[in-house]
Amino acid sequence: MNKIYNPQPENWSEILKRPTQSFNDIEETVKGIFKEIQQKGDQAVIKYTSLFDGITLDNFTVTNEEIQTATTLVSDELKEAIAIAKDNIFKFHNAQQTSKIEIETTEGVQCWQEKRPISKVGLYIPGGSAPLFSTVLMLAIPAKIAGCNDIILCTPPNKEGKINPAILYAAQLCGVTKIYKTGGIQAIGAMTYGTASIDKVYKIFGPGNQFVTVAKQFASQQGVAIDMPAGPSELLVFADETANPSFVASDLLSQAEHGKDSQVILVTTSKNILNDVETEIYKQLEKLPRKEIAQVAISNSNLIFVDNDTLALDLINEYGPEHFIICAKNENYFVEKIENAGSVFIGNYTPESAGDYASGTNHTLPTNGYSKSYSGVNLDSFQKAMTFQKISKKGIQNIGKSIEIMAEAEGLQAHKNAVTLRLNELNKA
Amino acid sequence: MNKIYNPQPENWSEILKRPTQSFNDIEETVKGIFKEIQQKGDQAVIKYTSLFDGITLDNFTVTNEEIQTATTLVSDELKEAIAIAKDNIFKFHNAQQTSKIEIETTEGVQCWQEKRPISKVGLYIPGGSAPLFSTVLMLAIPAKIAGCNDIILCTPPNKEGKINPAILYAAQLCGVTKIYKTGGIQAIGAMTYGTASIDKVYKIFGPGNQFVTVAKQFASQQGVAIDMPAGPSELLVFADETANPSFVASDLLSQAEHGKDSQVILVTTSKNILNDVETEIYKQLEKLPRKEIAQVAISNSNLIFVDNDTLALDLINEYGPEHFIICAKNENYFVEKIENAGSVFIGNYTPESAGDYASGTNHTLPTNGYSKSYSGVNLDSFQKAMTFQKISKKGIQNIGKSIEIMAEAEGLQAHKNAVTLRLNELNKA
Repeated sequence: MNKIYNPQPENWSEILKRPTQSFNDIEETVKGIFKEIQQKGDQAVIKYTSLFDGITLDNFTVTNEEIQTATTLVSDELKEAIAIAKDNIFKFHNAQQTSKIEIETTEGVQCWQEKRPISKVGLYIPGGSAPLFSTVLMLAIPAKIAGCNDIILCTPPNKEGKINPAILYAAQLCGVTKIYKTGGIQAIGAMTYGTASIDKVYKIFGPGNQFVTVAKQFASQQGVAIDMPAGPSELLVFADETANPSFVASDLLSQAEHGKDSQVILVTTSKNILNDVETEIYKQLEKLPRKEIAQVAISNSNLIFVDNDTLALDLINEYGPEHFIICAKNENYFVEKIENAGSVFIGNYTPESAGDYASGTNHTLPTNGYSKSYSGVNLDSFQKAMTFQKISKKGIQNIGKSIEIMAEAEGLQAHKNAVTLRLNELNKA
Repeated sequence: MNKIYNPQPENWSEILKRPTQSFNDIEETVKGIFKEIQQKGDQAVIKYTSLFDGITLDNFTVTNEEIQTATTLVSDELKEAIAIAKDNIFKFHNAQQTSKIEIETTEGVQCWQEKRPISKVGLYIPGGSAPLFSTVLMLAIPAKIAGCNDIILCTPPNKEGKINPAILYAAQLCGVTKIYKTGGIQAIGAMTYGTASIDKVYKIFGPGNQFVTVAKQFASQQGVAIDMPAGPSELLVFADETANPSFVASDLLSQAEHGKDSQVILVTTSKNILNDVETEIYKQLEKLPRKEIAQVAISNSNLIFVDNDTLALDLINEYGPEHFIICAKNENYFVEKIENAGSVFIGNYTPESAGDYASGTNHTLPTNGYSKSYSGVNLDSFQKAMTFQKISKKGIQNIGKSIEIMAEAEGLQAHKNAVTLRLNELNKA
């Protein structure tokens, strides 16, 4: 771990630099597979599933029977845990519903804004070592609340052509309408263009490896929206002397186990805490099954000492962490002044893993500094705000002149004319 | 104009197809200029301003004096028109403010969502024939309401090194903090990376030509957010026999004058209206100063007759127009059922140009079918939703078990451990 004491603000950007990833070589692969999917549809999906996942499937749509079987395979204990998480996630996202905003801006000029669901959404759930059924909850629950019509899910099959039962169970529980056994670039391509089996969607959500990331990025140039740009997961903890070093270490490690490229940072105003957290990290690290992964992330991580809370806050805002834990007596200062963070965890009893699973907040959050401009996934991510306006005869008489003058000043005569014709007709009457 | 009667649904997507644009050759130019800006900063901005705009400027920051001068050059009539528009745009966007959403999802588990401003935003305003000061209003007013700290504006100078006075006037009136005389790829590049003169921003807004479009797209891969993907402007009018053909024609032409690639569509359930609108279009077209442009867009446009409102609605939802005008006795049906449109204009006295300038709604809207997944620019575009959570001892005892079980099932032991440590400590007490 890198221990850094009182770094000068002019060096912050260097210290806080995230590793840049270059995807140039992957891009060509993505373009090639996308083109093939556009031309050959399902046939290309089958081909690449066979190639990348080692299983040839004639039919990659999950059947009701498979879902029933999966349900019996999930333990009651896990079902109960999922039920509690689902309940909390539902409550928090349901509370995000907004009502129509309506205002008469000028007499006779009625304007309103309404949110309407994105009718077709696609959820991507990675396969691999960790079956991320929690991400199914985080995406499908708000999609359902938003009123999306088609909520499809793609996830890669294992070598036996099967999907982890917990993923299937969570998907049906949360209202996913169709599940497909396909992953990687071919899944994103199929949702982008549509095939005979898989419907084209309007927006794609979900995490994935570098192939999925580049495929989503390319999809976003092909007319499909995506939830957000992806990058390695991040956690920044601010801790003063009131923090519990063992808890802080456990939080940093929970982030570090995600991947070797995970970003883990401690900022503290206490040299004791800095040293104690370091000791605790190495102690706890030893017992982790994913030690090998966490170790790499930890070795690249920074423990930063700064003199006071003001400097700490400035540094944290410059970084813009995905997850931000505050363990400090002055917690309100940080809560009020934090400008850039995906999700904020406050106090010694609020581990990041609570938000990852069960507290109710969403765990799909902006990484790589994108918290400066992006929201995490929330109910609005599954809707779009549309505006409406209705102008009465009186209304166009009230604002018509302004429109004519402005349109003329912009050199757009036809814009002016659309108003003039109406005003003339009303003057005649 | 193409007149199409009762097209079969299986042919809709072909009929409604937008022209695809290929930007491959521009992309290399953009990458080259961006790289130069990254390396040489202001010097590169000056070079390309000289090259593309034909003026060499030592200092491209607009001075207070220039703003004062501009203010004296704008007519009182135009100032008054702008004041009315500003007032309406302010009212409508100010009404979009949301309050904190707070909920205790489980006893002791407090979760909330707050919107916080994107602290640095960049507005791009094109130069060229039409000085789009209206776009300054549409972007700067909500940015100011949102509480963005730095609101910078880039716009290309003319050959005398000057900016249209109405743009400068609108910018200072709406709270833009800095104005720079630079346009095109170099402006987007400068806002992406920052230079000695121009601050790096977190999100870039605004329209532009194909060079600006590609530059924004590339910027979005360089860590900066953008408002939305751009495409040629679009209008779809639905008119039944209660519509006024002359008004409808004027609206279609107001869209057509934007550019040769503008998309203009009439959908109607009345053959009389179809023919009358066509006649009116050719009549009105003759008198337009931008006739040459409008003519091309009109010649590519479609007048579509369908048998009934249901078919009309389905077709319109499949297209997803940027602007959608409804002139029909059955207007409520369309208002309630429209799923995909950027902004909706209702009734015979609601021309699209009202929304372009002065009614209060925003004119920066999703084109190219992106209304299926994107909102138009609104107050939220200048903010991000952040989530917060604070869990008490009681709270972690309530949901801790669920987190442990789920983390374990996902194979993430360190996530579990962060909870277990806390639960153990509480059990000891």
